[in-house]
Amino acid sequence: MEELRVPFEDLVAALTSCLIKNGFEQERAFRSATLFAQADLDGVYSHGVNRFWRFIEYVESGYVDPKAIPTKLSQIHIFERWNGNLGAGNLNAEFAMDRAIALSNEFGIGCVALQNTNHWMRAGNFGWQAVAQNCIGICFTNTKANMPAWGGSEPKLGNNPLVIAIPRANGPLVLDMAMSQFAYGKMTLAQEKGEMMPFEAGFDENGNLTKNPISILKNEMALPTGLWKGSGLALMLDLLAAILSGGQSVHEIQSGGEESGLSQVFIAIDPNKLELMDWMEAKADLILVDLKGSATFPGKSVRYPGEQVLAIRNENMEKGIPLSLDFWNKLKNEINE
Amino acid sequence: MEELRVPFEDLVAALTSCLIKNGFEQERAFRSATLFAQADLDGVYSHGVNRFWRFIEYVESGYVDPKAIPTKLSQIHIFERWNGNLGAGNLNAEFAMDRAIALSNEFGIGCVALQNTNHWMRAGNFGWQAVAQNCIGICFTNTKANMPAWGGSEPKLGNNPLVIAIPRANGPLVLDMAMSQFAYGKMTLAQEKGEMMPFEAGFDENGNLTKNPISILKNEMALPTGLWKGSGLALMLDLLAAILSGGQSVHEIQSGGEESGLSQVFIAIDPNKLELMDWMEAKADLILVDLKGSATFPGKSVRYPGEQVLAIRNENMEKGIPLSLDFWNKLKNEINE
Repeated sequence: MEELRVPFEDLVAALTSCLIKNGFEQERAFRSATLFAQADLDGVYSHGVNRFWRFIEYVESGYVDPKAIPTKLSQIHIFERWNGNLGAGNLNAEFAMDRAIALSNEFGIGCVALQNTNHWMRAGNFGWQAVAQNCIGICFTNTKANMPAWGGSEPKLGNNPLVIAIPRANGPLVLDMAMSQFAYGKMTLAQEKGEMMPFEAGFDENGNLTKNPISILKNEMALPTGLWKGSGLALMLDLLAAILSGGQSVHEIQSGGEESGLSQVFIAIDPNKLELMDWMEAKADLILVDLKGSATFPGKSVRYPGEQVLAIRNENMEKGIPLSLDFWNKLKNEINE
Repeated sequence: MEELRVPFEDLVAALTSCLIKNGFEQERAFRSATLFAQADLDGVYSHGVNRFWRFIEYVESGYVDPKAIPTKLSQIHIFERWNGNLGAGNLNAEFAMDRAIALSNEFGIGCVALQNTNHWMRAGNFGWQAVAQNCIGICFTNTKANMPAWGGSEPKLGNNPLVIAIPRANGPLVLDMAMSQFAYGKMTLAQEKGEMMPFEAGFDENGNLTKNPISILKNEMALPTGLWKGSGLALMLDLLAAILSGGQSVHEIQSGGEESGLSQVFIAIDPNKLELMDWMEAKADLILVDLKGSATFPGKSVRYPGEQVLAIRNENMEKGIPLSLDFWNKLKNEINE
């Protein structure tokens, strides 16, 4: 596949133009485009422009309403509930984390529950958003059913990604983990290459753990991370998202056919407001010095969540975002049509 | 090992007497005894009276101060920080969850960070405490370093248990998960029986995943649940606990030789105050109907976290708590000395 590198600003500008052609207003198009491009900028190629055409299809088929903005359902102290009105998932999520941050600036902690929204694309974006405002950020989403519960032989749980982000001058920590051990994107790639997964990744048709992506993909039998533990955690995150937002739970999500109408929760903690600044930075540094000082097995290294992102971001900002020529040509054609 | 069954009240009374002999005041002795016995009542035999003599040793050697009660360090809206003053871990944790619940009754959400405390014994107790008050409860603790970070060949992370509990009339959901795939207690038991673990449980000396408890136990090389994912989550929970409480992080905890001076976080959400009651119960019920309706592999079943607890609790309440005769005799001797 032929690749080229495109300056971040050029990619954002092109995506913005395309979104405007698809019904987004100027500023919202720019923000959504930035969120797509930011995933690629940070090296999370699976959840950036890779998903852009599918997103456009969702707009065209009415699953995503480009004009819809969130409306407030209720506010009680630090807790707000919002209806995402089936708008763009990344814009709704950015808005909700912004609200949580604003609440945390006022109260120390803010919590926003969002119903009736859409796929937020790269989960980590909203953790990086919080740390950019010097806040701790925690957020999670439900998804369509895409993995079995422990013991089950059909997909019943979402892989419900969870983000925990902690600001730090010497490099924030951003954990971005779905509750499946491997993303379906990675398993599809391995299948195409005829490769096995490096660790057990799901179940075969007899319920045995397997590294073979073919038998896993056939029935959407991805392994919950940590076996019964990730199964339990995914279930609890779905309950929390659906209960706090009043929105749909995993089993209701695909009733219309496509993954739409998700429930999400955004929590921000302002360490400055909570008077944690005296030690936050020092504690994080000492913990990471200890961690990075760990003895390792030959050829292995120990990393903290998000450690590699800044290096990739800097490289991609300098050299341009790696894109397939096909994608870039298609994007330019769409704009110039 | 000879067993007998002892009525719950008799076990609590005997433990209370023993704690009073070890310097606890009447009411605090009763509460701590109840928390120990409650673990056994609920079938969590690894974290109940099984740990009682070790707890008494900690009191005798000064790691746990029977007279110490938590003192408040600061309060900012819904967030309070407390110093556990190295008191009994289960009493401190119960106190902290109570404070979080009280804050949630007032504000909708409450968050209490606790520094300088001790092992809380059974984590799930504090989730059941929240749901007994019709609150959602979330809490986590750090521990001494007892598992490697992903890639590492020495213990650097705590297994940092996390609890998420959701009230429900037809049976609450209480997730109680440590960040290691298996507890060391279970691996020791398998080693004694000469058995393998049912799934990969840790690393051998060459860094390969293994089910053999002997090679895992030798170097405290328990597997983080979900491989790199549990490794990352354990690290983030330690950071959150240490930063929010201002207390020790995992790498500082064993500096004095024993596991003491832990950091913990308690969050309560009052669904009544947040006006979630209209749908909370119905949503949880529907999610669980869907889950329990899952097709399963032959001989398997799908369960939700905490599902089995109430049945075990009822059985043990009716028939008495299963105890080893050795334990019961020793406890009676201690009291009558």
